[in-house]
Amino acid sequence: MLDASDWTAMEENLPFWNKISTKERDTLVGGTLRFVHPKNAVVHDDRNKCTGLLMVLKGQLRVFIISDTGKEITLYRLFERDVCVLSASCLIRNITFDVHVQAELETSMLRITTDAYQQVSRNNPLVQEYTNQLVSSRFSDVMWVVEQVLFMSIDRRLAIHLLEQAAIAQSDSFTATHDAIARDLGTAREVVTRMLKRFQEDGLVSISRGGLSLLDRDGLYRLT
Amino acid sequence: MLDASDWTAMEENLPFWNKISTKERDTLVGGTLRFVHPKNAVVHDDRNKCTGLLMVLKGQLRVFIISDTGKEITLYRLFERDVCVLSASCLIRNITFDVHVQAELETSMLRITTDAYQQVSRNNPLVQEYTNQLVSSRFSDVMWVVEQVLFMSIDRRLAIHLLEQAAIAQSDSFTATHDAIARDLGTAREVVTRMLKRFQEDGLVSISRGGLSLLDRDGLYRLT
Repeated sequence: MLDASDWTAMEENLPFWNKISTKERDTLVGGTLRFVHPKNAVVHDDRNKCTGLLMVLKGQLRVFIISDTGKEITLYRLFERDVCVLSASCLIRNITFDVHVQAELETSMLRITTDAYQQVSRNNPLVQEYTNQLVSSRFSDVMWVVEQVLFMSIDRRLAIHLLEQAAIAQSDSFTATHDAIARDLGTAREVVTRMLKRFQEDGLVSISRGGLSLLDRDGLYRLT
Repeated sequence: MLDASDWTAMEENLPFWNKISTKERDTLVGGTLRFVHPKNAVVHDDRNKCTGLLMVLKGQLRVFIISDTGKEITLYRLFERDVCVLSASCLIRNITFDVHVQAELETSMLRITTDAYQQVSRNNPLVQEYTNQLVSSRFSDVMWVVEQVLFMSIDRRLAIHLLEQAAIAQSDSFTATHDAIARDLGTAREVVTRMLKRFQEDGLVSISRGGLSLLDRDGLYRLT
């Protein structure tokens, strides 16, 4: 059962909420479940295209693709109040790819089932418009990754990534394995290890077991 | 002025054509111009987000992105009957990136201006739905490129590319500079030259001045 705070979250995070009918709101709420996923749990994968829309209440999700050989690249992250639409890609015509979604922290979320969402969306252009705006927004996120991967050297990408991670952690020190960074950047762990070692030699970062500290933010900014 | 064959093209290539009103059709036709672009002409670039929807009547367009340093990668190609939507990205909320469009052959096309398209689209969900399906379809095209670039070795990508080019040319021999292939794959010309040389040594292709011939299609297929 959803409680009052879940209703508030839906009202605040779905821009069409106050423009749809009470009956439509009831349909959505009736098809919504609250979940808490532990850190590292798989929330959605390519075996199920119809998980539904995921609204993050608290925590952090990573959306990524994975190759046959297990190589990964992070497309974007979702934080509190963000809504994941590609986990409901069965609703969207012409989306032919699959993404994986994983909880990076313990994450509580509302899952609006595709059935309920589709029922309301089918008859309400406002809801369709919202879906399409989400799709376009994720398309833009992915293009940003494409530009980074194709056009930027790995040192620049790593510097941007470390500054972003510090912003997410709200601290200059944060946990980060070389493996996790490699997955985010879509490169090999050895490349990350080598580049971090160079950053350390240049006094930009300090590497500790399972973690990193930024020592020279200005220096990292200059690399970007 | 559009002629009868242009009307036919709009009817055949716009799935909503017979479901919109005569007035809406007149608005679209009134805002549509026919263009012929010579081979290699720039049809759309990032200085103008509002070129409009481009419908290819004959010829071939390449849609690509370009870095500050001039490095390119091809996102997809448009052929006869295809419609380019990202050249009208000013119509689409949350699309924050820009693409370039270039004619690869002499290309005749209809350009539906954004004003006319928006006028009809604003009041007709069928037209909006068509736009969104085009966007999702291009999103899927781009994800395919992402997966290729990130997850495939360059020999595999080059083999796929050569087989695609032969299919487009409808011949095992086609014109292709190493530069053009490098732009398509988003890699350096030297990498392409080296790999083509290896393909030639392996008896897969024969390299001529400004062109290529596939000698062993099965061998190329096996690489993919």
